[in-house]
Amino acid sequence: MKICVAQIDPIIGDLEGNTNKIIEFIKRSRSMNPDIILFPELTICGYPPADLVLHDSFIAVMEQCLGKIVRASQNLTVVVGLVRHNNSKGEKPLFNSAAVIHDGQFLGYYDKCLLPTYDVFDERRYFEPGHGVKVWDIKGKKVGIIICEDIWQHAGYVDTRYQRDPVLDLEPYKIDLLLNLSASPYQFQKPTVRVQVCAKAARTLNCPVVLCCQVGGNDELLFDGYSVYVDKHGNLQQLGKGFQEDLFLVDLSAPACTVPYHYNAPEDLYNALVMGLRDYFVKQGFTRACFGLSGGIDSALVACIAADALGPENVLGVSMPSRYSSEGSITDAEQLAKNLGIGFRKVSIEPPFEDYLKLLKPLFDGMGPDVTEENLQARIRGMILMAISNKLGYIVLSTGNKSELGLGYCTLYGDMCGGLGVISDVLKTSVYELSRYVNREKEIIPWSTIEKAPSAELRPGQKDTDSLPDYGIVDTVLKGYVEENLSPEEIATRNKLPLDVVKNLIIKLHRAEYKRRQAPPGLRVSKKAFSVGRRFPIVQKWI
Amino acid sequence: MKICVAQIDPIIGDLEGNTNKIIEFIKRSRSMNPDIILFPELTICGYPPADLVLHDSFIAVMEQCLGKIVRASQNLTVVVGLVRHNNSKGEKPLFNSAAVIHDGQFLGYYDKCLLPTYDVFDERRYFEPGHGVKVWDIKGKKVGIIICEDIWQHAGYVDTRYQRDPVLDLEPYKIDLLLNLSASPYQFQKPTVRVQVCAKAARTLNCPVVLCCQVGGNDELLFDGYSVYVDKHGNLQQLGKGFQEDLFLVDLSAPACTVPYHYNAPEDLYNALVMGLRDYFVKQGFTRACFGLSGGIDSALVACIAADALGPENVLGVSMPSRYSSEGSITDAEQLAKNLGIGFRKVSIEPPFEDYLKLLKPLFDGMGPDVTEENLQARIRGMILMAISNKLGYIVLSTGNKSELGLGYCTLYGDMCGGLGVISDVLKTSVYELSRYVNREKEIIPWSTIEKAPSAELRPGQKDTDSLPDYGIVDTVLKGYVEENLSPEEIATRNKLPLDVVKNLIIKLHRAEYKRRQAPPGLRVSKKAFSVGRRFPIVQKWI
Repeated sequence: MKICVAQIDPIIGDLEGNTNKIIEFIKRSRSMNPDIILFPELTICGYPPADLVLHDSFIAVMEQCLGKIVRASQNLTVVVGLVRHNNSKGEKPLFNSAAVIHDGQFLGYYDKCLLPTYDVFDERRYFEPGHGVKVWDIKGKKVGIIICEDIWQHAGYVDTRYQRDPVLDLEPYKIDLLLNLSASPYQFQKPTVRVQVCAKAARTLNCPVVLCCQVGGNDELLFDGYSVYVDKHGNLQQLGKGFQEDLFLVDLSAPACTVPYHYNAPEDLYNALVMGLRDYFVKQGFTRACFGLSGGIDSALVACIAADALGPENVLGVSMPSRYSSEGSITDAEQLAKNLGIGFRKVSIEPPFEDYLKLLKPLFDGMGPDVTEENLQARIRGMILMAISNKLGYIVLSTGNKSELGLGYCTLYGDMCGGLGVISDVLKTSVYELSRYVNREKEIIPWSTIEKAPSAELRPGQKDTDSLPDYGIVDTVLKGYVEENLSPEEIATRNKLPLDVVKNLIIKLHRAEYKRRQAPPGLRVSKKAFSVGRRFPIVQKWI
Repeated sequence: MKICVAQIDPIIGDLEGNTNKIIEFIKRSRSMNPDIILFPELTICGYPPADLVLHDSFIAVMEQCLGKIVRASQNLTVVVGLVRHNNSKGEKPLFNSAAVIHDGQFLGYYDKCLLPTYDVFDERRYFEPGHGVKVWDIKGKKVGIIICEDIWQHAGYVDTRYQRDPVLDLEPYKIDLLLNLSASPYQFQKPTVRVQVCAKAARTLNCPVVLCCQVGGNDELLFDGYSVYVDKHGNLQQLGKGFQEDLFLVDLSAPACTVPYHYNAPEDLYNALVMGLRDYFVKQGFTRACFGLSGGIDSALVACIAADALGPENVLGVSMPSRYSSEGSITDAEQLAKNLGIGFRKVSIEPPFEDYLKLLKPLFDGMGPDVTEENLQARIRGMILMAISNKLGYIVLSTGNKSELGLGYCTLYGDMCGGLGVISDVLKTSVYELSRYVNREKEIIPWSTIEKAPSAELRPGQKDTDSLPDYGIVDTVLKGYVEENLSPEEIATRNKLPLDVVKNLIIKLHRAEYKRRQAPPGLRVSKKAFSVGRRFPIVQKWI
């Protein structure tokens, strides 16, 4: 039996466009002569469709699209994901389903049983759990078809204690093959885990497993692709491409040939960010990006990602020096732009800064400088970038990292301006790691940028360490509290840190919630991002 | 039997403060000599606690708080809401529970059965549904105790098709009294519905119903109070105060005395906004607010709400005229400030506007004016307000209405600046209605502000109607699409509007999603607000 794995990158809600892409992939697969073509979860609408599914007309059009796919399925079994009405009992009026189609005939649906409702997932908001597994007869083989989360419970990788295990439910049927339609968001080191999850199901069911993943970026969520084929022993046989569409043939009768799988974490993380930025632009029809190029490491890394995603000719770095900018920062920024071949402009913020100070003097009479003047500088820069965006059609990228955003070391309507936070889920320590990855072969980001002490350069001689512990400590505390939900006491004990240092950082974290609520969407690459999947009150008094 | 209804306003996550308040209300209730004191849903942590409940330490402290309440319960039955661990099977590790305490003894828990997971509700994210109803023996009476949503299903007022009805489940027990702990967010005309829901349960169970509501504002969510006591015939006997804390005695043996209940919609809406603004400030320890006072109707209404919420002495209106501001707008703004007794400052934005134009000229050489220059003006105003905020400790209020935010007729980092969107869930037509309500006794908002044609005054002679249909049409389309999930065709047919007008407005709505994602939290007063409860992709191609 031969299965074509169609790892596609849909656009959310583009029912017609996605359907055309599905039909095109069906056509392309025919040269490989497969028995089955397998698509990812919710193929027709893209994952996650969010509240679009609450529109009845959206579901109705999806049904029409399914009809078109049925008509394109001659001599082939097509397995495709979509949302359908739940016409029987149950809390919710919809199912997250796989449609099984064969040779111009619609055979039936399988409805997803395990509905993730944690972190970035909201499936219980929309969907009723399916009533149970089914076995499909395809070319005389017994085939199980399940959807994403359905396979994860069995390997013990989910927080939810589902009361059902679709893999175990399939065991008595002694199936010959398990297919899974997936849309499982990228996070650091997830591909490795995904292979283990498939391997566990394969060994339990004593059959091969083929899992087709969605690929691409949808707002904050990144899907890394890497579709999986493991044999019945759980050995990895084939892996789809990472971070791009793919269409590959799995031949179950081909001799076993275990793929050695080497996971390169910084490379994957970098590629994830490039893909997320590219898809955010391409899917909206945008081509060009601009951002403040300060000479610091964060904007330098964003410049590299943007140049790789959009082409250097579509990227503009804007140096906006003030009286506090060091000469080194300006030349570093210029050198980086030269190394990457991106556009570069310099606009001094001194004239409007002077003017604001004059304008506001009557209101602030007799009061000394404070954070107000620092924020003014950041906001003037934001305004210049937004004017460039409005007039010249560049989309502004926000260059702040997760550590800054976590502690509120960023200015609302200033450096937080932008359509997309490129590295807002990347901790400062990872920013360093990624920058070294960028420079692995030659100096692209000037080493002086990487090696100098971090500073916002908003007052004379300012350094981040004036008011913060080392970023190694900051990142440890943020990870423990945000990603692991540990208490301050647990974080202090596990990492041998003074409790007051930990608590002060967590207080800073909570106080900055109001800023994060107005941050641009940020590409999610960690277990718990600020941008989505974390729902936190602004007004609260816990810690 | 006598029941004290303790309609309190908790602070989210302030476990110790809320517990102290609970104990204080218990003490205050003693002068009324009640048998039972009833608190709202999730009393100890406040509703909604959001992802705070994912911290084990948060749940552990809540248990300790419960111990304190038990010790304060001498000679009294106390019914209080909290989150507790689910130690038996089930998907989720927590319950949303009511603790029943009597005379220093903890008697047991009831766990909420119906968990809303739609709109602003996320309860399946955290909680396992309870296993069923219980009947409690209190002073020889059979008392049913349920939580919020548990009572709504029975009256048919929920979208979810729950497979269980706790009211019907209680029917065989022939209970003498039904208590309900609630935290049901305000929305336009909800109190009327809530009384009907209680009446329906009372008639089914043939017993009185006492429902205790949370009151107060928690970020975007407003809770209106109006706790309910209906007799066994479903007649309203007592109603708690609206928009403030209350502690009142229900005496079941007192003679029936049906309360006539007149609902004043604009008054309630206005009071909801005042409470939401006040709580956002008070719960964070802020006292003073500023905003741009343009002479238009939106900022005028916000000024009235702010003056009522914080006292006029804590409110500063800033007039920031440009070359395009009409003389009438400036004098209207000044007159309003005088009428309200709020602070008033005037800062011309011409100097920085000139400077930006000069600064950007080399970048924009030869290009004519467009939306860039309009946005510059709005952003200069935003920066001035933020500088006042930073230096003088005022919190900036955003004054945009829902119609503008819906269509993107607002400037990111400009008039969208602020800690709180006061009227961002109020459609333009309601802004007019509320302004007339403000002026019901005398002219507070100058009638010229109310009667002139809406304009952003960002270019010569600009009027909103230059590029938009009448706001009556805009609001009809927004309501149909956002609140009712109707298709453009349905909206056009039902309202006899041209389909292309409807579609163009919906396209504008979708295109502005990226702006709304960065809007400040906005007080929710409608069935479907943009700020919370609506999860919509930015990058999508549906309509």
